[in-house]
Amino acid sequence: MQVIVWATLDTLQRNKILQRSISKVGANQELTSSVASIISQVKIQGDSALFKCAQQFDNVNLDSLEVSVKEYQAIASLDQKSKNAIITAAENIHHFHQMSCPKDFEYEKNGINLGKMYRPIEKVGLYIPGGTAPLVSTLLMLAIPAQIAGCQTKILVTPPQVDGKISPAILFAAKHCGIETIYKAGGAQAIAALAFGTQTIPKVYKIFGPGNKYVTEAKLQVSKDALGAAIDMPAGPSEVLVIADDKANPAFIASDLLAQAEHDKEAQVILVTTSKQIVNQVLAEIEVQINYLSRKQIIHEALNHSRIILANSINECFSIANSYAPEHLILHIKEAKSSLAKVVNAGSVFVGQWSPESVGDYASGTNHVLPTHGYARMYSGLDVMAFMKSISFQHLTLDGLKYIGETVESLAELEGLDAHKNAVSLRLKSL
Amino acid sequence: MQVIVWATLDTLQRNKILQRSISKVGANQELTSSVASIISQVKIQGDSALFKCAQQFDNVNLDSLEVSVKEYQAIASLDQKSKNAIITAAENIHHFHQMSCPKDFEYEKNGINLGKMYRPIEKVGLYIPGGTAPLVSTLLMLAIPAQIAGCQTKILVTPPQVDGKISPAILFAAKHCGIETIYKAGGAQAIAALAFGTQTIPKVYKIFGPGNKYVTEAKLQVSKDALGAAIDMPAGPSEVLVIADDKANPAFIASDLLAQAEHDKEAQVILVTTSKQIVNQVLAEIEVQINYLSRKQIIHEALNHSRIILANSINECFSIANSYAPEHLILHIKEAKSSLAKVVNAGSVFVGQWSPESVGDYASGTNHVLPTHGYARMYSGLDVMAFMKSISFQHLTLDGLKYIGETVESLAELEGLDAHKNAVSLRLKSL
Repeated sequence: MQVIVWATLDTLQRNKILQRSISKVGANQELTSSVASIISQVKIQGDSALFKCAQQFDNVNLDSLEVSVKEYQAIASLDQKSKNAIITAAENIHHFHQMSCPKDFEYEKNGINLGKMYRPIEKVGLYIPGGTAPLVSTLLMLAIPAQIAGCQTKILVTPPQVDGKISPAILFAAKHCGIETIYKAGGAQAIAALAFGTQTIPKVYKIFGPGNKYVTEAKLQVSKDALGAAIDMPAGPSEVLVIADDKANPAFIASDLLAQAEHDKEAQVILVTTSKQIVNQVLAEIEVQINYLSRKQIIHEALNHSRIILANSINECFSIANSYAPEHLILHIKEAKSSLAKVVNAGSVFVGQWSPESVGDYASGTNHVLPTHGYARMYSGLDVMAFMKSISFQHLTLDGLKYIGETVESLAELEGLDAHKNAVSLRLKSL
Repeated sequence: MQVIVWATLDTLQRNKILQRSISKVGANQELTSSVASIISQVKIQGDSALFKCAQQFDNVNLDSLEVSVKEYQAIASLDQKSKNAIITAAENIHHFHQMSCPKDFEYEKNGINLGKMYRPIEKVGLYIPGGTAPLVSTLLMLAIPAQIAGCQTKILVTPPQVDGKISPAILFAAKHCGIETIYKAGGAQAIAALAFGTQTIPKVYKIFGPGNKYVTEAKLQVSKDALGAAIDMPAGPSEVLVIADDKANPAFIASDLLAQAEHDKEAQVILVTTSKQIVNQVLAEIEVQINYLSRKQIIHEALNHSRIILANSINECFSIANSYAPEHLILHIKEAKSSLAKVVNAGSVFVGQWSPESVGDYASGTNHVLPTHGYARMYSGLDVMAFMKSISFQHLTLDGLKYIGETVESLAELEGLDAHKNAVSLRLKSL
């Protein structure tokens, strides 16, 4: 890991250090065009394109895209310990997400009754990445807020395993979260199927979930298409920024950095500290702990482009964190909780030495789908509202219209829109 | 206006009738490339590109991009009636928007303290279109929620008048809403300046506001750029769908359809009714009222592609409205208020004969920046939250980690992420 002394850098160098490489958010010409061609194949050929892609990209010959009732019997093979873990995590996630559930309101003032109604998005698509292991936690993070929002149609798509099956853990978690239908599709083709629909997979209005660069690029492309679908948020590689003072526990810090690094060789890992001693102790701890970890290779590649920044004060650490706007921010400092007031830009904050990121990744209740690549400056992590939209309304009595009428007429006049003015004048004259 | 009997159509024809023409949401190759070239000019040349564009597109030679303190003296020339109208509208908009202001929360359970903090987006850009008249209402709809959210930097850009000045009404409304700096720039070049910054205009994180097809396309392009900015929502031409029963007032309905039609020759105007008589009466009323309106030509062009749909029941009217998902929905029916329960997809609803759309466009308090082109299926109108983002946090005690630890370990194991598991195990072992 590169060690940088913040005080020795000028503004340009500092910006450069905190800048993500753009290549990491997808869009290069080759990626763009190959994803575009996959999308158009799905648009034109529908299901048959999905079967072809499953052969081509997942090396699977599927008999059917939909998971059959019979396949759900595989749930029986899932051990009780895993089932309990999924149930406990789901309970905590449900509890936290209900807290930020939006509430309808209305009021009346001068004969004008105004209000807002929150409605679920009727049809949503949930993408669960495949890969070496079943990402059951991602399923919980998408399906539970969709369930609380009350979305009628929740379409789950996920790439099949090499044997053409879906992992028992995914099947169990899906059932537990009220997901009725699961389709075997992954990559750009799955996103295209959700955005435009096929003979088997229904079109949805909004697509949620993380994925590799093909999935990310496909989500961007369908969200630009007037006939496509909206998406949850743009996504880059996962990130953590850790702030540590001289009293912090180097072993705990190292374990947090390593946990982030194992995600992906492009994962972003940054330690910002006021203590030279912590720098050395953390580097030493990483050398020790990495030997016991199975994803050594990925971790090494991630750490190669990771940085340790030595700052002059805790306040400087926070200003660095706020300019970087990390997906995950971990605070290994004294009075960590009261320091939350200093956080301006971050996806989720892990406060104090007993709050490792993995707790939030899996089970405490917060959502782990969070803004990356600095998008924490303007995007929120996933919540129930992301699965809903609001509808405002107004109901005026005759007195209400009399009260506000002149104001509306003046403003319509000011904007030169006399048909707007007439809609009020004509009503008032009609009396 | 084309009159359609819904019962005589098959599903395909019905979908076609309710489909917006895609051309209307911008993206054609010529538009895309001309906007792209304007954006790259602003990226490379900064201010000088903006001065050039002002000459080229607005026919103005500007001395300065920023509105000077001296120019604010023009406010004195604004009549008191207009000032009062702006003040009253602002008061109502402020009141309504504060009602949906998100609230921080936190709770503690089993030694796990979880919560969410809502923070303003630090830097936002507000685009106010120019044209024949000053769109002071749009300024209020953008600036007031930004003010309530607490955004530190609110950059307002708007095209200058032919005389190079900004209208006194805009200057007054901006001051009244706490906008400090206004820049004279319009079109795609203004959006590029906000997204990437120039020597004079600061870069912002999110861009708000309606505009013509160049502005809309520019917003789409900068929102795709990893170094660009987020945008409020995709936008198409303004729309209204009116539902009327046989007891409705044809003159009121006609005035509402005409108010929508005067916006833009591409405005979408739809009447859905159960009464043949209402159809004829409304058509007759339109012929009468249109003669008194100054924007006849635009209205005629808009009405040429507008539709009247004759349905069998009020419930069928609502199912048509919900599939169309209109920006504005006006209910000229009995028990209009209780019918709100039937609304699934709409931007804003105007309930009953005394609630013309213009009331909400200007002064009642609801926001008039609403999802068009069917985006009401998954997007909300502008609100305070659009100017904020949420940050979740968690603070565990040692007991909290002991309580949840095993669940996290099991799920990390299930997903094959042992560094995630280790971050917990190592802490628990350290005791």
